Amino acid sequence: MDKVRGILIGRMQPVHNGHMEVIKRILEEVDEIVIGIGSAQLSHEVKDPFTAGERVVMMTQALAEIDVDPSRYYIIPMQDINFNAIWASHVKMLTPPFSIVYSGNPLVKQLFAEEGYEIRQPPLYDRINLSGTEVRRRILKDENWQELVPKATADLLKEIDGVNRLKNLSVKEISDI
Amino acid sequence: MDKVRGILIGRMQPVHNGHMEVIKRILEEVDEIVIGIGSAQLSHEVKDPFTAGERVVMMTQALAEIDVDPSRYYIIPMQDINFNAIWASHVKMLTPPFSIVYSGNPLVKQLFAEEGYEIRQPPLYDRINLSGTEVRRRILKDENWQELVPKATADLLKEIDGVNRLKNLSVKEISDI
Amino acid sequence: MDKVRGILIGRMQPVHNGHMEVIKRILEEVDEIVIGIGSAQLSHEVKDPFTAGERVVMMTQALAEIDVDPSRYYIIPMQDINFNAIWASHVKMLTPPFSIVYSGNPLVKQLFAEEGYEIRQPPLYDRINLSGTEVRRRILKDENWQELVPKATADLLKEIDGVNRLKNLSVKEISDI
Amino acid sequence: MDKVRGILIGRMQPVHNGHMEVIKRILEEVDEIVIGIGSAQLSHEVKDPFTAGERVVMMTQALAEIDVDPSRYYIIPMQDINFNAIWASHVKMLTPPFSIVYSGNPLVKQLFAEEGYEIRQPPLYDRINLSGTEVRRRILKDENWQELVPKATADLLKEIDGVNRLKNLSVKEISDI
Amino acid sequence: MDKVRGILIGRMQPVHNGHMEVIKRILEEVDEIVIGIGSAQLSHEVKDPFTAGERVVMMTQALAEIDVDPSRYYIIPMQDINFNAIWASHVKMLTPPFSIVYSGNPLVKQLFAEEGYEIRQPPLYDRINLSGTEVRRRILKDENWQELVPKATADLLKEIDGVNRLKNLSVKEISDI
Amino acid sequence: MDKVRGILIGRMQPVHNGHMEVIKRILEEVDEIVIGIGSAQLSHEVKDPFTAGERVVMMTQALAEIDVDPSRYYIIPMQDINFNAIWASHVKMLTPPFSIVYSGNPLVKQLFAEEGYEIRQPPLYDRINLSGTEVRRRILKDENWQELVPKATADLLKEIDGVNRLKNLSVKEISDI
Repeated sequence: MDKVRGILIGRMQPVHNGHMEVIKRILEEVDEIVIGIGSAQLSHEVKDPFTAGERVVMMTQALAEIDVDPSRYYIIPMQDINFNAIWASHVKMLTPPFSIVYSGNPLVKQLFAEEGYEIRQPPLYDRINLSGTEVRRRILKDENWQELVPKATADLLKEIDGVNRLKNLSVKEISDI
Repeated sequence: MDKVRGILIGRMQPVHNGHMEVIKRILEEVDEIVIGIGSAQLSHEVKDPFTAGERVVMMTQALAEIDVDPSRYYIIPMQDINFNAIWASHVKMLTPPFSIVYSGNPLVKQLFAEEGYEIRQPPLYDRINLSGTEVRRRILKDENWQELVPKATADLLKEIDGVNRLKNLSVKEISDI
Repeated sequence: MDKVRGILIGRMQPVHNGHMEVIKRILEEVDEIVIGIGSAQLSHEVKDPFTAGERVVMMTQALAEIDVDPSRYYIIPMQDINFNAIWASHVKMLTPPFSIVYSGNPLVKQLFAEEGYEIRQPPLYDRINLSGTEVRRRILKDENWQELVPKATADLLKEIDGVNRLKNLSVKEISDI
Repeated sequence: MDKVRGILIGRMQPVHNGHMEVIKRILEEVDEIVIGIGSAQLSHEVKDPFTAGERVVMMTQALAEIDVDPSRYYIIPMQDINFNAIWASHVKMLTPPFSIVYSGNPLVKQLFAEEGYEIRQPPLYDRINLSGTEVRRRILKDENWQELVPKATADLLKEIDGVNRLKNLSVKEISDI
Repeated sequence: MDKVRGILIGRMQPVHNGHMEVIKRILEEVDEIVIGIGSAQLSHEVKDPFTAGERVVMMTQALAEIDVDPSRYYIIPMQDINFNAIWASHVKMLTPPFSIVYSGNPLVKQLFAEEGYEIRQPPLYDRINLSGTEVRRRILKDENWQELVPKATADLLKEIDGVNRLKNLSVKEISDI
Repeated sequence: MDKVRGILIGRMQPVHNGHMEVIKRILEEVDEIVIGIGSAQLSHEVKDPFTAGERVVMMTQALAEIDVDPSRYYIIPMQDINFNAIWASHVKMLTPPFSIVYSGNPLVKQLFAEEGYEIRQPPLYDRINLSGTEVRRRILKDENWQELVPKATADLLKEIDGVNRLKNLSVKEISDI
């Protein structure tokens, strides 16, 4: 079998239009894409408000919105581990066999390069104005965040009352017990 | 939003026709199904030969074979944890919100029932002759295991040389160092 | 300060009259007793049905029943760890300073003896007919288990529907998915 | 059984008069209180100098000083876990069943609120001048810290030479090997 | 640099003459040998009585006894991990780079073979009469175990009172609390 | 047996001439030295670029360069643990029995002092100009780092292409996905 598979890993807090753009471009270059939901263990923090399960819903429904062939992608939650030297192996265990790593992160690039993988820069998009950071900022400020995300993300946030979760978590406490 | 979601968890070592049958039946009862790949951390053992990633491939491709609408299922690898009392919570973190648990396992039923979930018996199929145990037995004996599994499972085993992996792991060692 | 403290560790699944008897006797020998609730991480298994929290309730209320001075005991849940060589140190971290270990278990005795602790055999009682094993057996058989336990244990089991939990967990499953 | 139980969680580094004040007030509102000793795994750091066991001694003896009925409280050490989404479940495993959470911490409030618990603000006291931070500062400066804590805390610090431990830990190292 | 390194992993409970024989033979085939002390986390059990540190002493002193050039070997304690699929990577992190794996264990062989390593059968010796099992059996029975081990092993057991540790651990307890 | 053993623990990122100087001096004071490779789990970070295995190679070969008697030292990788109160015990498990701790670190000194060990200040050398920090700085700036390290360290970095690893890891990423 000669399928070429590439992997893209992101925290997706939350899934936004930039992710979807990159995925579409990568699917022009490979047969199948592995989409890693990174830092899967994190949730309920201002920078990481959503659970792995919630992010899987967003991504699954967003891919269905744009009619990507379901036999061409895999969505895999991945917890962080504290051992850089075995992280590539940990990712391999959780995913279909792949040969290309899409990443601009120096650590990820170094770890997979040492294991002999081909590294590619992810296709470009406007990372400054279209980022998880910007989406979360707009949610907290009641600005228009919906234009930055797929309908699936907005639907899921409504289902779990995600806007209020994020706002509640951002409150500062005067002093702890 | 009023989607009804059910969850089914299995080790899927490997994915076989019984799994596909149960999934189709459950999809007649709920809007969306969460398919948990259980004991995700296990692999390379005679009873658990395949990695989580390999099992995700089998399931993804097998669902594509039978043309299930991709917006209706989620495939989630789940590692075991050693604390029964927090397992239901661990599953919740990893998955979309769900309300129905399909399981015949007494522990799973008790844990989710204590959390207030509806428990249903998974739809019936011939569990004696159609099981992971039987598939692995046939692989080791060079009998016809292909008839028990989707084409996707057979394809993946060829890609990873899975038959030889299982045979190699079943060798007995005379004495260890 | 010259308080003499002794430690007694047990799984207490559930707390029964034998535990209370031993604790009373030990309190005749030391100033204060540390009561370790062992294998605190286990619950919802036939041999370990109750959570750490549930066992703490049983013990706390049972000690109040017999009017033990509350400044003379400490009830501490203790999770197992997989490293025998650091277990004594783990226990020390979780407990008040103590100098005497009450145990008949060869491993516990060896580990604490190597650290220089005094080891004493726990005061005797009828261990064959008064044991967690016997209490659980009677619960499953609808025999009189109440006579073997403090009122506190019976009360807690009623509060959490503990009898049905144990019975549900003891059901055998025909075959797993 | 209809006991109303509330939970209060704090690091208690060390137990001080503010804790005791809050506990007395809560006991006017509920039947039983669960006192969680948070970050139980931490010790021997300037901000977290005391072990879980040492903090349990302080709290146990301080409650005996003020003659609280021992059947009305539970003292439970609780280690941090890195998964917010399962933390509420972890706390439940370790404690008696409770229905009210006393906390001013936004994360704690959000996590338990999502699980359906009633959240209450802890009764007020002077948190600026009566805090673990202030007690530790006074210990390091040889100021009068004893007036801020129960006698039990002062006794325990003497037993374990806690003042010197804190001072030793606060020394800065010029350069590490 | 073109050094050829081989790895040999064993539990070494305790180090015996068979280990030393195998190591000498392997050093005839490679430039440098990595000696893995397996299951490093285990100790104080009848089948695994000695700590990793104690086993390192035995091996270090035994190699000095036979005058092996110290620049030609590395002694590395290795804890078990529960994920077969990342075990090879875990071993790589802990060791110098190596290319040959000496093992008769089917799982070890399969895991390293999938990563592209050369697998060799360890040089032969009399494994039935010269094994950790036999040494431990003789210690418990007061038979001549000293003839099966290097002087270093006998010295270390004397230093730590290892014979009594093993005997104490082998005692059966009538009933646990 | 009356061997006096001392322990020295450092991260050794990488092994440099200061380490070798200190080890030689300590060997004038004790019979045997335990050399702990600290933070063994870390690698592939700018401050911790090398794996435990790579650091073991550097140290082993550097000791052979200066002809230290191999029966007088033990090189032991040690992972960090998150529980200060059991760290001393963790170190004991991994090492030969020792009685003297060479450390200038306040936490290490306090933890081992509480366990009754003798603490000694490591022999002096020029810590400002001879440190891992300085070696890594020179590597990144293409200055002469070789003069600060044993030949063994330079050889190992060449074998694993360590200079490029460090440079790659130091690249800043504009924005993450």
